[in-house]
Amino acid sequence: MAKTIPVLEIFGPTIQGEGMVIGQKTMFVRTAGCDYRCRWCDSAFTWDGSAKEEIRPMTAEQIWERLYELGGDRFSHVTISGGNPVLIQALEELVLLLKNKGIRIAVETQGSRWQEWLYHIDEVTISPKPPSSGMDTDFAMLDHIVKKLADAGRASHMSLKVVVFDDIDFDYAKRVHRRYPGIPFYLQVGNADTTEADDATLRTQLLARLEWLVEKVAQSNELNDVRVLPQLHTLLWGNKRGV
Amino acid sequence: MAKTIPVLEIFGPTIQGEGMVIGQKTMFVRTAGCDYRCRWCDSAFTWDGSAKEEIRPMTAEQIWERLYELGGDRFSHVTISGGNPVLIQALEELVLLLKNKGIRIAVETQGSRWQEWLYHIDEVTISPKPPSSGMDTDFAMLDHIVKKLADAGRASHMSLKVVVFDDIDFDYAKRVHRRYPGIPFYLQVGNADTTEADDATLRTQLLARLEWLVEKVAQSNELNDVRVLPQLHTLLWGNKRGV
Ligand code: SF4
Ligand code: SF4
Repeated sequence: MAKTIPVLEIFGPTIQGEGMVIGQKTMFVRTAGCDYRCRWCDSAFTWDGSAKEEIRPMTAEQIWERLYELGGDRFSHVTISGGNPVLIQALEELVLLLKNKGIRIAVETQGSRWQEWLYHIDEVTISPKPPSSGMDTDFAMLDHIVKKLADAGRASHMSLKVVVFDDIDFDYAKRVHRRYPGIPFYLQVGNADTTEADDATLRTQLLARLEWLVEKVAQSNELNDVRVLPQLHTLLWGNKRGV
Repeated sequence: MAKTIPVLEIFGPTIQGEGMVIGQKTMFVRTAGCDYRCRWCDSAFTWDGSAKEEIRPMTAEQIWERLYELGGDRFSHVTISGGNPVLIQALEELVLLLKNKGIRIAVETQGSRWQEWLYHIDEVTISPKPPSSGMDTDFAMLDHIVKKLADAGRASHMSLKVVVFDDIDFDYAKRVHRRYPGIPFYLQVGNADTTEADDATLRTQLLARLEWLVEKVAQSNELNDVRVLPQLHTLLWGNKRGV
């Protein structure tokens, strides 16, 4: 019997809101479960039990059917997000199925685990979590993942992304960039208020934080070949899910 | 004697606000002069005479000195923008000087002219202007530029970007993407109000337009492998110059 994948939501077509494929038209498959508990997690429903009854075990084929039902011939790119999708070995079947159909695939993970199917991902965003998350980075594992992908000639298919909330996170970002100088590096503004319901207030906050981060990066001689980005989906749709 | 380049402004470090290098930390060199007169040009001061007294003829070496004075060791990327910088043959000297210093270079042009120095540009954004601009696209010239870069193995160093204000522009964008299916394709929200002084009002307008454009792209089966982006600098700094 085909293995199943714990799926929390499938939606799109929409655009990717962040990181190396910002703006890309894509479908989203969000898996359940995370090995982290970040203080400011904007997808806590994937692991805190609050959306437990929405998790459905689905085969790769069933996920494809649902993607096709929603997107028809109007997509060529799928983003697999979480939680941490790299916990799930069974995603290999979905990855191979999508490749067979000529679909490009992006994945985001905090870099705490490795899966062989990462070799097939077109855009791997590794997003180690800064001190404000309350989590510790396993740099040995991060080295391992970066080296495996680089050794396989996948350097152009990966990037590092660090979310920055404060000065301590900013120092952490510099440390990560220093450790992996050749890997495309993204700094992202943290969304400090995942409960703010007023979109205009949230936007103003986020853009003020982006301005702060741009200024910090502009003043630093350790962060030159980097990109600074907001989350477009938060600017557009605030803290809503499934858009 | 070294040839001079008509320069309107040099500023940075800041971030690139749009297109294929959105978010990239960069310095800006803005040249004067354009062969177009787009109805909604957001850089009309480069060609309408209003900033005539600010144009300075500078050698490549003088431009470098000014970049270094502003940016010191805090940059590794320079964006040459206009106006249409591709009008200016003398930019070759600046391009070669920057390459020698290990600086990456981005250029944006509407695709109405060719220069040999385009071969050395790391990120060429070709932005043909849609009907709302009031300009006509010279598709033969566009073919020529795209072919020259592709034949030289520079396909991964270029992208097409179309600004969309309305449904007619959207059809034009589809036409451009259909003509060059293999070239990375960006759709950008037009800023319909380059005189709005209230940043909050402008942001709300721009994000509403972005949402409209995302929805149009989501519904289209002709625009799948594309990216939809706003102008970050307009979201951040409104219609101000030199940021
Ligand atoms: S790694 Fe991501 S999904 Fe997991 S807790 Fe942290 S922010 Fe949330
Ligand atoms: S091509 Fe660009 S600079 Fe020239 S008029 Fe049009 S928008 Fe303005």
